[in-house]
Amino acid sequence: MYLEKINQTNDIKKIEKAHLPELAQEIREFLIEKISVRGGHLAANLGCVELTMALHLALNLPKDKIVWDVGHQSYTHKLLTGRKREFDTLRTFGGLSGFPKRSESPCDSFNTGHSSTSVSAGLGMVVARDRKKEDNTIVAVIGDGALTGGMAYEALNNASKLDTNYIIILNDNKMSISENVGGISKYLNTIRTTDGYLDLKADVYQKLLGAPYGETMVEGIRKVKNKVRDMVIPGTYFEDMGITYMGPVDGHDIAKLTRFINDAKTVKGAVLIHVETIKGKGFAPAERHPARFHGAEPFDIQTGLPSHPRTKSNYTDIFSTVMIKLAQRDERVVAITAAMPDGTGLKRFRNIFPERFFDVGIAEEHAVTCAAGMAAEGLRPIVAIYSSFLQRAYDQIMHDVCIQKLPVIFAIDRAGLVGSDGETHQGIFDLSFLATMPNMTIMAPKNKWELSDMLKFALTLDGPVAIRYPRGEAYDGLAEFRQPVEDARAEVIYPESDIALLAVGSMVRIAEQVRENLKEQGYSCSLINARFVKPLDEDIIKALTRGHRLIVTMEENIRRGGFGEAVRDVIDRLDTDSKVLPIAIEDQFVPQGSVGQLLEMLQMDADSITERIIKEHSKGAS
Amino acid sequence: MYLEKINQTNDIKKIEKAHLPELAQEIREFLIEKISVRGGHLAANLGCVELTMALHLALNLPKDKIVWDVGHQSYTHKLLTGRKREFDTLRTFGGLSGFPKRSESPCDSFNTGHSSTSVSAGLGMVVARDRKKEDNTIVAVIGDGALTGGMAYEALNNASKLDTNYIIILNDNKMSISENVGGISKYLNTIRTTDGYLDLKADVYQKLLGAPYGETMVEGIRKVKNKVRDMVIPGTYFEDMGITYMGPVDGHDIAKLTRFINDAKTVKGAVLIHVETIKGKGFAPAERHPARFHGAEPFDIQTGLPSHPRTKSNYTDIFSTVMIKLAQRDERVVAITAAMPDGTGLKRFRNIFPERFFDVGIAEEHAVTCAAGMAAEGLRPIVAIYSSFLQRAYDQIMHDVCIQKLPVIFAIDRAGLVGSDGETHQGIFDLSFLATMPNMTIMAPKNKWELSDMLKFALTLDGPVAIRYPRGEAYDGLAEFRQPVEDARAEVIYPESDIALLAVGSMVRIAEQVRENLKEQGYSCSLINARFVKPLDEDIIKALTRGHRLIVTMEENIRRGGFGEAVRDVIDRLDTDSKVLPIAIEDQFVPQGSVGQLLEMLQMDADSITERIIKEHSKGAS
Repeated sequence: MYLEKINQTNDIKKIEKAHLPELAQEIREFLIEKISVRGGHLAANLGCVELTMALHLALNLPKDKIVWDVGHQSYTHKLLTGRKREFDTLRTFGGLSGFPKRSESPCDSFNTGHSSTSVSAGLGMVVARDRKKEDNTIVAVIGDGALTGGMAYEALNNASKLDTNYIIILNDNKMSISENVGGISKYLNTIRTTDGYLDLKADVYQKLLGAPYGETMVEGIRKVKNKVRDMVIPGTYFEDMGITYMGPVDGHDIAKLTRFINDAKTVKGAVLIHVETIKGKGFAPAERHPARFHGAEPFDIQTGLPSHPRTKSNYTDIFSTVMIKLAQRDERVVAITAAMPDGTGLKRFRNIFPERFFDVGIAEEHAVTCAAGMAAEGLRPIVAIYSSFLQRAYDQIMHDVCIQKLPVIFAIDRAGLVGSDGETHQGIFDLSFLATMPNMTIMAPKNKWELSDMLKFALTLDGPVAIRYPRGEAYDGLAEFRQPVEDARAEVIYPESDIALLAVGSMVRIAEQVRENLKEQGYSCSLINARFVKPLDEDIIKALTRGHRLIVTMEENIRRGGFGEAVRDVIDRLDTDSKVLPIAIEDQFVPQGSVGQLLEMLQMDADSITERIIKEHSKGAS
Repeated sequence: MYLEKINQTNDIKKIEKAHLPELAQEIREFLIEKISVRGGHLAANLGCVELTMALHLALNLPKDKIVWDVGHQSYTHKLLTGRKREFDTLRTFGGLSGFPKRSESPCDSFNTGHSSTSVSAGLGMVVARDRKKEDNTIVAVIGDGALTGGMAYEALNNASKLDTNYIIILNDNKMSISENVGGISKYLNTIRTTDGYLDLKADVYQKLLGAPYGETMVEGIRKVKNKVRDMVIPGTYFEDMGITYMGPVDGHDIAKLTRFINDAKTVKGAVLIHVETIKGKGFAPAERHPARFHGAEPFDIQTGLPSHPRTKSNYTDIFSTVMIKLAQRDERVVAITAAMPDGTGLKRFRNIFPERFFDVGIAEEHAVTCAAGMAAEGLRPIVAIYSSFLQRAYDQIMHDVCIQKLPVIFAIDRAGLVGSDGETHQGIFDLSFLATMPNMTIMAPKNKWELSDMLKFALTLDGPVAIRYPRGEAYDGLAEFRQPVEDARAEVIYPESDIALLAVGSMVRIAEQVRENLKEQGYSCSLINARFVKPLDEDIIKALTRGHRLIVTMEENIRRGGFGEAVRDVIDRLDTDSKVLPIAIEDQFVPQGSVGQLLEMLQMDADSITERIIKEHSKGAS
């Protein structure tokens, strides 16, 4: 009944303090109900209900700015800023985004999606505020997981120079998406157990003040006092960097949080509030299995179990299984993930080969260069990173792996359209950016068996290899086509004439349907599974130009720099009249929606492609 | 006379300890003499002569591994590993690399060039060593400047988990390439002044041990003791991350350094030795102006002045001047560099507008996203980063700037071939990787006036803009062609027929020569300055297909995903018989050499291009 009163920004300020916990409870129930139907990032959102409320109480939105790191935890923020009614459209085509969007609300000050950007973006806003001589408050909210990302540290290092206010909230739930890793995590854990220090404070201080040192020691004692202050007030790590530390504070105590935020506003310079929250708070299944409820599919509220249990395996499962086989056969195989043991399917590998598994945190750059180091010394690292996150390691792949031609294998999940996460998560650039890199081999499997074959094949190559495969159910058609994977060799599936469909990975399945459509309409049509995007199978491309008037390339990737342009580059060197029709994503960011909806929007579904081919084919005939 | 005895790896161990300082002196003289002739990274190398010697004394190369961060400080290492005689070929075509190269020596364990990779690579090697149950020592040598890069922090965060030895040497010269920035720098400065603590150690310790606390305080006291240990032994920042800290130690005291390194080998886990060095040590001009002697041109040893003073301005100078004008006219203009105020030409801007200048350290990712934050709040940030280093911010440009279509201007110096720095520094991928990004505008100027015009024009656009220009002398030809820069409009310089040269930026100058060659041989030839690589001037491309049988695209960029492929993509949609001949860098990393040598090697000099055009043209005629 309190949530009813929340219809626009700052309505929360009208709720009596005493009733705020009830509002929090209602928000939780609302989120659980909605996400149980549509899916979404449940655990993270349940963890920061009170923190979001406190921010809205202490700040004046939209004048004040909140930058939500990653942004999948912004659901309560959306509720509190007038978007309650659209909530049923969350993460659907044309609906509310699952992330902050400047185009959606003036209260969404910066788009996020990838990790560890908030402190940088917020710092930029602080600079702009000060240049404009304004006095609003700017807050970056970053999780402890995102703090393992290097650019967060780069930003903290710079924030320390500020002499005006900037609030960084560390939303510490003792995990990123999965369990957290590394020195900083351990350090944060230490802080959490430092209450004992507080009692000691006065005594130790007195002791040192009254200590019988000679006058020459005065300066030394002053320093010791400063150090003791750091010691009894936890957070020396941040203080060493020049950032004022406040906390830790209970992240589910609205009053305390509000007071901390208000206090922080008075600090001149960067101030970090260390907030302790519980991921999945208030929903027992999510508290128990926060990783499972990170990006949750629709589930049953009573049991927490998926509403539509999967019956078919997806590419992640296949990868997971093959990895174990590869490791059993080859001692050199090790696996690396950037905080995604669940998402990438490496959890089983970790359980079986804990000493050959490395979760480096949300640190894609380090993941890749560390793998390069391993490969330089004879291991065969397999780095599993989602396509859109691999963009973060562009230079590391180029500079540390490709220049030295080191045998690092990139297992690129979520390549192509990913659906409801939208623009920031579409894996539609990898074929283009990886193809610019000399020495790189790029493959994409047509079905689940081919993913397995390609992984095995990749281990036989003596250089960098990328295998990209899409989110979701693994295709189990075309099982009868399983020619051995050979270097730079495409696979001819149906050899005919006139029109050739040359499809990459996920598009082979669509190409099958396109071919059926075309056959129904009386066209002759070959289907070739490209397998390799780099190096290209130039022989087969040449062969196709003999007997095919139209060569249709198909890829779930941006057009510029993609497979189609490369194929045309080969064909243009030949003396042929064959035309190329590249089917790819035109120059645009692709919004959220089901993959089917998006393919239609992009005119890349089977029917649209069929039409486009017939149109192009008729041009050639005229 | 001691340097004479150094002919192969480990020869240094035969020199009597007492004579090592003399060897150091000889190495310095050798380096100064050689670099004064050829140019090279003088200051950094002079700073780590003793450190390198100590490493070679304490380690057993090539069994033990040293990873040199950035790598331009590896000259002494090269001298000590049998490469003294090839030193005259340093940084020349086919000669010794100015960076570590696995292909050059078994003692170069990992190629470097870009900053902040060494801790990651070394950690990967440690993992490999332990997997192989070997016991060699692995050392990463990283500067304090490189420590501002986020991936170094990602690596430290992971190194803290180790339970086997890994040595990280912090080569702290109080600056990166330029003056160092940020919280970590300040912190390191604090450590440097902590000698006073050491004297206090015993006393304070005793005081606390003997303090009259009750038994309930025992645990608290234990913690206090730990803290006091941290306090009297500097380095809590690293210790908080779980890394053993040793130092600071004088980086020019060979005996002490050797002892520290030997001690560090006994530590189980990651250990950081904090070494204080003086950049440019032993050569007064370099000590006084370390930034000028970072990457030095040939100079006079007596005066330190350049042997061949520049008479013409380069693009960096032009950028430098225009930036000041832009800032004078437009209050919103701010400038950002990633540790390169000198290299990018922003030093003058900094001197005039200190409050509008931001040096973020070697932190390209943060630089870009921070700029996005500024742009989101109304500023007009101009981010000046070299082409090859901008690769590090691929995702930040895409995710934080382009998705939100924020008006950030990227001033990309050192685009195209850079010469003697080789593979890691060639700026030959930017056109391809930037062109994949929706909403991005990409320009390249033909001459110095056009750089100025493009910068001014970029400020009128309401979205991301990249302007790329090459290293070295700015072209001052074609001064009479200065049509106003308009969105997506190429500039027709010489309109003729039959062959059209459509050239990007630096290639316009070469295209002029090609055109002269062709004219001499009786061909008709148009010359068009592309100006925009994205969006393309489709109108002019269409117009060119009328009246030109051959359209030659010219770009100093990798072919895949480049300008030529994009132009062909436009032409292929037209009904035309015009052929496209793309002149670009074929799929390969480009080694060091003079730009002229490299263009010849790549068949991209005027004569080679002329030949290629005539050959292609004759095909069309047959």
